[in-house]
Amino acid sequence: MKIGIVGGTGDIGEGMAMRLSAHYDVVVGSREQDKAEATCTMGRTEVTKRGKPCSLTGVTNQQAIDAADVIILAIPFKHAASTLATLHGFENKIVVSPVNPMEKTDHFVFVPPAEGSAALMIRKILPKEARICSAFNTIAANKWKALDEELDYSVPVCSDDAEAKKTVMEIVNKVSRFKAFDAGPLASSCMVESLTPLLLNIARYNKMRDVGIRFI
Amino acid sequence: MKIGIVGGTGDIGEGMAMRLSAHYDVVVGSREQDKAEATCTMGRTEVTKRGKPCSLTGVTNQQAIDAADVIILAIPFKHAASTLATLHGFENKIVVSPVNPMEKTDHFVFVPPAEGSAALMIRKILPKEARICSAFNTIAANKWKALDEELDYSVPVCSDDAEAKKTVMEIVNKVSRFKAFDAGPLASSCMVESLTPLLLNIARYNKMRDVGIRFI
Repeated sequence: MKIGIVGGTGDIGEGMAMRLSAHYDVVVGSREQDKAEATCTMGRTEVTKRGKPCSLTGVTNQQAIDAADVIILAIPFKHAASTLATLHGFENKIVVSPVNPMEKTDHFVFVPPAEGSAALMIRKILPKEARICSAFNTIAANKWKALDEELDYSVPVCSDDAEAKKTVMEIVNKVSRFKAFDAGPLASSCMVESLTPLLLNIARYNKMRDVGIRFI
Repeated sequence: MKIGIVGGTGDIGEGMAMRLSAHYDVVVGSREQDKAEATCTMGRTEVTKRGKPCSLTGVTNQQAIDAADVIILAIPFKHAASTLATLHGFENKIVVSPVNPMEKTDHFVFVPPAEGSAALMIRKILPKEARICSAFNTIAANKWKALDEELDYSVPVCSDDAEAKKTVMEIVNKVSRFKAFDAGPLASSCMVESLTPLLLNIARYNKMRDVGIRFI
């Protein structure tokens, strides 16, 4: 299975690519292919020096979509709609949204779009044959990149497509000690997306860093 | 310090009263004093047979407010506004909302009132001298009642009143292995309240019971 990461050179995408590349063929997309290739060169060094297999290929965002079976949209909410407008070919592919619509005032606030969540907005933008899931919403960029650290987090996954959800949960369960939880239909994504500003507030007000979550 | 529980004979209030009574004077309120007294008799038996101190007094909801320094509103969202309309005397008291506005369709959904959260709605209803906090939102009734079980949960607390928040966090930290986290101003309560329908969905879709949360 090939996983494509749109925005794979960004803060979240980079660590995501490295961690997933030990288990899957990962195609790192970027607006500029050069940047994607540089990220892959760096990623290969980091992963292989830890004695793990690594499959990373740097391409454009569009090529990542075309090549992959599962596409992760590692893009900030504010660029999500404009980025997706420039891309095509999502039909019949599994599309994973880790996107969280939020703003920072003196604290972080969940500010969903009119559709109720980033996941539902993305569903509206993409062709209806795209098999949309939300996952990985609460994993901090620093933790993705901290390759020597085992991550003992719970990862809620939402989708209306049972098979797509199952595939994404399997991917989640491959990464470190992540444990995937079925969090219901795609409409439930708002409750997952709003976790991230909560965790950022928890970090801020309790002098912590990169707070994650575990369901117990 | 005296803690009053409005709705102290309900599903959540009952276990809350028992657990808190080992550390504080707890005044259990109910619409019917007889019911509150019966809950206290049962509670005293359960707590003292475990060799713990127990201070429980059954009164009406209004008497619980009048007697207490800290008042916990252990009432379901759908009865919150109508119950509060019949009560008074909240001025200068710390008022804790564990209330979660949610509905069940084929899954649980966060359905906040116009104010954005139950906590902000309660702030609008109560006199402006009430010192409102949200806390205990994600703790399941069954877990409150399972006195033999240590509860290793994280408990986010929101408030605009720093001293009230500090007091509530101290109360939280007295209960079992609860760990209080400052989750920011009262306006952040929406992100805490929406955790509960998420946890109920997680329980439902993953065949779990009474799921709680830990920040790590």
